[in-house]
Amino acid sequence: MGTVKCVGILTSGGDAPGMNAAIRAVTRAAIYNGLQVKGIYRGYKGLITGEIQEFKSQNVSNIIQLGGTILKTARCKEFLTPEGRKVAHETMVKEGIDALVVIGGDGSLTGARIFAQEYDIPCIGLPGTIDNDLFGTDTTIGYDTALNTILEAVDKIRDTATSHERLFFIEVMGRDAGFLALNGAIASGAEAAIIPECSTEVDQLEEFIKSGYRKSKNSSIVIVAESEITGGAMHYAERVKNEYPQYDVRVTILGHLQRGGSPSAHDRILASRLGAASIDAILEGQRNVMIGIENDQVVYVPFTKAIKNDKPINKELVNVLRTLSI
Amino acid sequence: MGTVKCVGILTSGGDAPGMNAAIRAVTRAAIYNGLQVKGIYRGYKGLITGEIQEFKSQNVSNIIQLGGTILKTARCKEFLTPEGRKVAHETMVKEGIDALVVIGGDGSLTGARIFAQEYDIPCIGLPGTIDNDLFGTDTTIGYDTALNTILEAVDKIRDTATSHERLFFIEVMGRDAGFLALNGAIASGAEAAIIPECSTEVDQLEEFIKSGYRKSKNSSIVIVAESEITGGAMHYAERVKNEYPQYDVRVTILGHLQRGGSPSAHDRILASRLGAASIDAILEGQRNVMIGIENDQVVYVPFTKAIKNDKPINKELVNVLRTLSI
Amino acid sequence: MGTVKCVGILTSGGDAPGMNAAIRAVTRAAIYNGLQVKGIYRGYKGLITGEIQEFKSQNVSNIIQLGGTILKTARCKEFLTPEGRKVAHETMVKEGIDALVVIGGDGSLTGARIFAQEYDIPCIGLPGTIDNDLFGTDTTIGYDTALNTILEAVDKIRDTATSHERLFFIEVMGRDAGFLALNGAIASGAEAAIIPECSTEVDQLEEFIKSGYRKSKNSSIVIVAESEITGGAMHYAERVKNEYPQYDVRVTILGHLQRGGSPSAHDRILASRLGAASIDAILEGQRNVMIGIENDQVVYVPFTKAIKNDKPINKELVNVLRTLSI
Amino acid sequence: MGTVKCVGILTSGGDAPGMNAAIRAVTRAAIYNGLQVKGIYRGYKGLITGEIQEFKSQNVSNIIQLGGTILKTARCKEFLTPEGRKVAHETMVKEGIDALVVIGGDGSLTGARIFAQEYDIPCIGLPGTIDNDLFGTDTTIGYDTALNTILEAVDKIRDTATSHERLFFIEVMGRDAGFLALNGAIASGAEAAIIPECSTEVDQLEEFIKSGYRKSKNSSIVIVAESEITGGAMHYAERVKNEYPQYDVRVTILGHLQRGGSPSAHDRILASRLGAASIDAILEGQRNVMIGIENDQVVYVPFTKAIKNDKPINKELVNVLRTLSI
Repeated sequence: MGTVKCVGILTSGGDAPGMNAAIRAVTRAAIYNGLQVKGIYRGYKGLITGEIQEFKSQNVSNIIQLGGTILKTARCKEFLTPEGRKVAHETMVKEGIDALVVIGGDGSLTGARIFAQEYDIPCIGLPGTIDNDLFGTDTTIGYDTALNTILEAVDKIRDTATSHERLFFIEVMGRDAGFLALNGAIASGAEAAIIPECSTEVDQLEEFIKSGYRKSKNSSIVIVAESEITGGAMHYAERVKNEYPQYDVRVTILGHLQRGGSPSAHDRILASRLGAASIDAILEGQRNVMIGIENDQVVYVPFTKAIKNDKPINKELVNVLRTLSI
Repeated sequence: MGTVKCVGILTSGGDAPGMNAAIRAVTRAAIYNGLQVKGIYRGYKGLITGEIQEFKSQNVSNIIQLGGTILKTARCKEFLTPEGRKVAHETMVKEGIDALVVIGGDGSLTGARIFAQEYDIPCIGLPGTIDNDLFGTDTTIGYDTALNTILEAVDKIRDTATSHERLFFIEVMGRDAGFLALNGAIASGAEAAIIPECSTEVDQLEEFIKSGYRKSKNSSIVIVAESEITGGAMHYAERVKNEYPQYDVRVTILGHLQRGGSPSAHDRILASRLGAASIDAILEGQRNVMIGIENDQVVYVPFTKAIKNDKPINKELVNVLRTLSI
Repeated sequence: MGTVKCVGILTSGGDAPGMNAAIRAVTRAAIYNGLQVKGIYRGYKGLITGEIQEFKSQNVSNIIQLGGTILKTARCKEFLTPEGRKVAHETMVKEGIDALVVIGGDGSLTGARIFAQEYDIPCIGLPGTIDNDLFGTDTTIGYDTALNTILEAVDKIRDTATSHERLFFIEVMGRDAGFLALNGAIASGAEAAIIPECSTEVDQLEEFIKSGYRKSKNSSIVIVAESEITGGAMHYAERVKNEYPQYDVRVTILGHLQRGGSPSAHDRILASRLGAASIDAILEGQRNVMIGIENDQVVYVPFTKAIKNDKPINKELVNVLRTLSI
Repeated sequence: MGTVKCVGILTSGGDAPGMNAAIRAVTRAAIYNGLQVKGIYRGYKGLITGEIQEFKSQNVSNIIQLGGTILKTARCKEFLTPEGRKVAHETMVKEGIDALVVIGGDGSLTGARIFAQEYDIPCIGLPGTIDNDLFGTDTTIGYDTALNTILEAVDKIRDTATSHERLFFIEVMGRDAGFLALNGAIASGAEAAIIPECSTEVDQLEEFIKSGYRKSKNSSIVIVAESEITGGAMHYAERVKNEYPQYDVRVTILGHLQRGGSPSAHDRILASRLGAASIDAILEGQRNVMIGIENDQVVYVPFTKAIKNDKPINKELVNVLRTLSI
């Protein structure tokens, strides 16, 4: 292992707003520091197919505000096999790429970890997922934007909920993590959140509905995290409809619009800082770490720690939601 | 029938952005012209329960920008019966309301038409529905806002569709009218629209998919109007998944968020003009007409004409979509 | 003059949201009809410098939602001279461009008119300006988006105006046309608009302020059209401050943010229809006309008529604003 | 000093998005804990004039999403005098208010500190200002929303800047603090920021312009913090225009729209947590502290520390901006 001269960047897994801001930051920080940069298309697949392009500063002009990822993303089965990773490594050698920055969620970072170990390549991970479920960083790239997208949708639904005096169950993303649902509920002034981390919430919902939520409210909104554990919004709506036929119950599943949109200020700044820090880390000789921001400071988190550890829900937030939804 | 001294306003049926702007305009135009105004809550139900409040100019301050309707809305079964309408009429007499402005869709205007005939009351209708399916007005209150809401959602979904190279079926509202779907498709640069007015579109979709839409595109979006005729987005997605398993197909049903949100400039201006014109119409002795705007001019449309006539889809738009989605 | 085989497109003058949607529509409609398309950069300047590129369908993918113009725009002094236009014509001949679609305001269409006459080239104009000051089309590309941008800004300012009980003068664009100011005032629920077309408005403002606007209102917003005739927002604010020192007066000049942003549904559909129609017009042998939409129908407007005729303000709107601001 | 039974709330100084979410949270948390709540209008002025109203849970329904403050705000000169504060205290006694929650910036918290000392009243401050210039909390209520508002405006201006290849100086608020300008510059991909904390930035601007910013860029945006130290955007624009007449320079002063708008998710959650924590603090017997959130934990900050200490700019951010604007 010698000095790094050329950095490859890829985005992998589910896309998240701010990935383009991160691509821009990695590219420009690399060039600023005299490194060459290559963009790898369609995640790890591009390492196998060789769909790779050199990036200059202009290639990332005017992308900071765009949702999605200009590098595309894909889930790549070949990369899960030793044979696939062998081809990927050969591509890197052929292209002269001697370090990798991977932007993605825990599946993507797991791939990076295995690849880095097998071939002794410096791999730096950036936490890019709307689910906020990576340990070692206060927030992940895309989370704040998704939260605001949820908020705008719930604000719109509340207009119609209030006009019609209805009970809405709104399902949001999160992949077994309740960050979006719980924080979305507090931010939108929802009456309750059903999240995988708190099974007690379901009993509360029961209680809340039994006690006659209409007493002082003329509409109610419950945010439900998509999850096999919760069962999703449809499940709860059916239960309430059966047991309390007097309620006018509706369901909205927000779906993929939560992944898109122009990134928020928070996500653009986060992505810019993480992207710049990833090059600092490479130049410092760091390898196989995820970059995070904790308490406004850049931190390096070993891959295993970032992926394996569960990021806990702040219980204070559960109490705040309960207190304010009276 | 003497001179009108007090006007009652109500919103009925599905809520639509701009209803509050219309309430404000009716209220202020009435007061400007020396009339008293009473707000009737929960649509025709308020006429039966007597939930009615006098409105001064300040009651409608700072509402022009709000989605939903401060008067609430409801569908009222009692008003469909002669007995219900008798009670409603008694309430009007008791409250001294001698003219009615009804803001709503075709169900609401049908109610107004019957009521007006039975009791010889001047009723003025304002077209308030996101579906744009009322004859005699270029657009209805709420349609332009809903179209922009759809657009923002599709723009977000396109970010993720493009990043993942997927085929999305997105279902929008419209209640058997294809205005939102067709115009939403043109405005969002979608590849196709499936609308109840054009059964041929389905064959085209078939053709479009068979011909291998991936040739030059790296993502595709098809907008589907909710409708028993089309069968909805889920129906098409299933068909494509079965017949073309190689495509990565996803479905999003936009749902109730299409009804909410701060009204667009177009809807606020439309609602303001229609609201002001409704009072002019009452003062002129007009009765039992819907107010519309055609070719930038206020027009009076007899209820029967507004409700019974089908509003046609402009075929030019179907061609524009086909031409531009190559 | 033979059959057209290759169409050049350019955007000229001030940029307007929706210009990219128009570029996309012209390009795709031309290709759909078997024509070649060339994009000319920086307006008429590109015809002089030869900065020209062939456009395929993919060159205009994913631009419908972008503000600004991918072709750039510039004001070009050389094109105002016969020598400049001679060079421009030579470029066209060299590039094989035998028809021109010009997207811009009245200055740009005036240039097209002169050039078309001098060299007998089919020139089609598309009305692209946020000012809405072209005769022969109900709205121009960019106007609806700018109106909504103004609205969002005024809604924000009203939050703070109401919290502090202030009188705000807000200056909007319009270049001697009052469409944005008058419609922006109605849509935002402003108390008054000062527009170049109505000098009487100023006296009303006087009256409105004298009569003590605070009586029933706890904030006031006056929209002022930028214009040498009105003198602008600063002028009125100074006058009011001097004569009524008891008022807490503030000024905001919205400025260039009115020109940007993702185009609204209306502007994208308008631009798509006009763009497609421009190719129809070329194929029909039309020349030296602006394409407009009037009463939902495509119309051809001779350049001289579009530029020379004043587009009148609808007096009904002036009355609506006055009635509703009580 | 006995047990607190009734809490008064007021908003003071410049308004900030999220103040309503804070009012809602204080009110509901107080009621949840068995306390009475009174809303005081127009900041400290309401304590002098007695404009005070009891708040129930419903009084704060559906306000979490609104900009501005339903309690209004004002700067109150009488409260700066001992006589004024004496009247304020008498009002509190008369109304039975025995604790105060003050939402505002450093002027407002200074008032609270003096008042609390003079009359031995438990006063809790919540940091409400878009400027983010209070020590002891990671962010202040309103800051994140203002940052996103700036971003949206700059994104729009960049559309037109890029289309015309111009150099824009955009002035943002901050009252001698550079948080909005620096973070706004990073988030919007601006080329430079001029902030009061870094006089060296000006030399860099000089250098940046001298070196010919056009080399690789086709537009440039410089964000300038309003401040007597920087001199504002107009000052720099004039300097550049004089020294480099070849540049097409424009200025936009964003102004009061930065204070309004529906609060972002971050600000709504922050305001909800701080509001709930203010009641916890009162119940715990805390007095004369500002509540902040640091590193995702609620903290109590003595008033003097919050107001007197300068909140430092993170130098890492200055470097990130420099690195990424190449």
